[in-house]
Amino acid sequence: MRAADQFSFVLFKPQSAGNVGAAARALKNMGFGDLRLVAPDAMNRRESATMAVHADDVLETATTYRDLAAAIADASITVGTTCRPGLYRAGAVALREAARELMALAKNNRVAIIFGPEDHGLSNRELKLCHRLITIPTAPEYPSLNLSQAVIVVAYELRMALHEKQPRAAAPKLVAAAEGDAMLERMAQALIAVGFLPADNPEHIMFAIRAMLGRSGITRRELEILNGIASHVRWAAEGGAETLERKRRAGRKLK
Amino acid sequence: MRAADQFSFVLFKPQSAGNVGAAARALKNMGFGDLRLVAPDAMNRRESATMAVHADDVLETATTYRDLAAAIADASITVGTTCRPGLYRAGAVALREAARELMALAKNNRVAIIFGPEDHGLSNRELKLCHRLITIPTAPEYPSLNLSQAVIVVAYELRMALHEKQPRAAAPKLVAAAEGDAMLERMAQALIAVGFLPADNPEHIMFAIRAMLGRSGITRRELEILNGIASHVRWAAEGGAETLERKRRAGRKLK
Repeated sequence: MRAADQFSFVLFKPQSAGNVGAAARALKNMGFGDLRLVAPDAMNRRESATMAVHADDVLETATTYRDLAAAIADASITVGTTCRPGLYRAGAVALREAARELMALAKNNRVAIIFGPEDHGLSNRELKLCHRLITIPTAPEYPSLNLSQAVIVVAYELRMALHEKQPRAAAPKLVAAAEGDAMLERMAQALIAVGFLPADNPEHIMFAIRAMLGRSGITRRELEILNGIASHVRWAAEGGAETLERKRRAGRKLK
Repeated sequence: MRAADQFSFVLFKPQSAGNVGAAARALKNMGFGDLRLVAPDAMNRRESATMAVHADDVLETATTYRDLAAAIADASITVGTTCRPGLYRAGAVALREAARELMALAKNNRVAIIFGPEDHGLSNRELKLCHRLITIPTAPEYPSLNLSQAVIVVAYELRMALHEKQPRAAAPKLVAAAEGDAMLERMAQALIAVGFLPADNPEHIMFAIRAMLGRSGITRRELEILNGIASHVRWAAEGGAETLERKRRAGRKLK
């Protein structure tokens, strides 16, 4: 079983059809699919489908429960989400840290993540059914997230934790220093030829150019472009421009 | 200035009032406040206010611009968000890695994060105005996030990066996008003049140059050097080289 399939996302007494639909979409975006609703308010199905967009399958297979205990009965780990401090909330762990622990636990256990209603979040009564609590770090001035936004942030962190071991998006492949240096030497000669660099001391300004390209690094294609520029500039400086002008007048197509 | 105040969140042609309101709330949740709208669709103000809840201040102080270039003119780093692969999207960096880099740059630079419209995201035309691209890792089956959900995931990662404990070396102070763009335009004209770029389609190769310089960013001094190169190259292409040669023979000292 995929680790992602070990997670259930439980919305306790959700009030907004739009949020339920947006939560379904968020789960599918992040590779999850098990959505559970506990005693939802009466809802406009069209509104939730509109927000779910292409996650209509997640929405349609969502299961509805009468109470929270039933919704989480098959889970080994139950996790409440909260944005408020309080009596039962002191032990809440920040999401990123919790996500890593949960991912390890999910190898062998079903994990239920529980989100409270839009207006008040989970009450102490529901928090008592949670094995652990997580909190999403926010600005202290306004810690209350929209329900579906809380869902996507949690799902995103779980997905990141799930894929942490794998190699990250490949950085661009850069050329070796020697090739870059040869190009810079050609560029320096071209810039001397057009009178931009003094022939007796090109190094001062070349150092700045080298630093700038060093920050970005140079790919193979960029190296070819820069070499092409150097040779065209040099050629123009050495009288090629007149030839070019003649070609242009003759209407010949430039490469 | 707080690092968070260096970030502008730019919604390009948003279509849904609910998403704009939810984006305002998301920004305030995560401690950001500068929301910019580019050519938004006509919107129901009550709907956006309903979704903003207690972020009405962010919504009310949001500024509206006619085009993207105007909205990002004061930013030194412009960052496009994309969920699709494609010609101009190959260099997109995953959000978490990008957030750390952006936080270092934000010490000295204004950073604009740009989000495309709900239905199609940013097109190549807008991506050309972006120094760098970020992508939110998602399930490959359904990579398209709701607009306001993309905003909160990006804002959340930036907040997490902001509060990471490790001190970082301050990034160099970079010039604003408008200045960089003007230089690139001069450079394109110069490269057309020497016959390196085709006059009828300079954009393809200029995009690669822009991306390379976008990765490094450009300091004030580097901007002056690049502007100097552009004007000398153009001057050489337009026949200045002969004059230069005469000067050289006459032994006059070059600057």
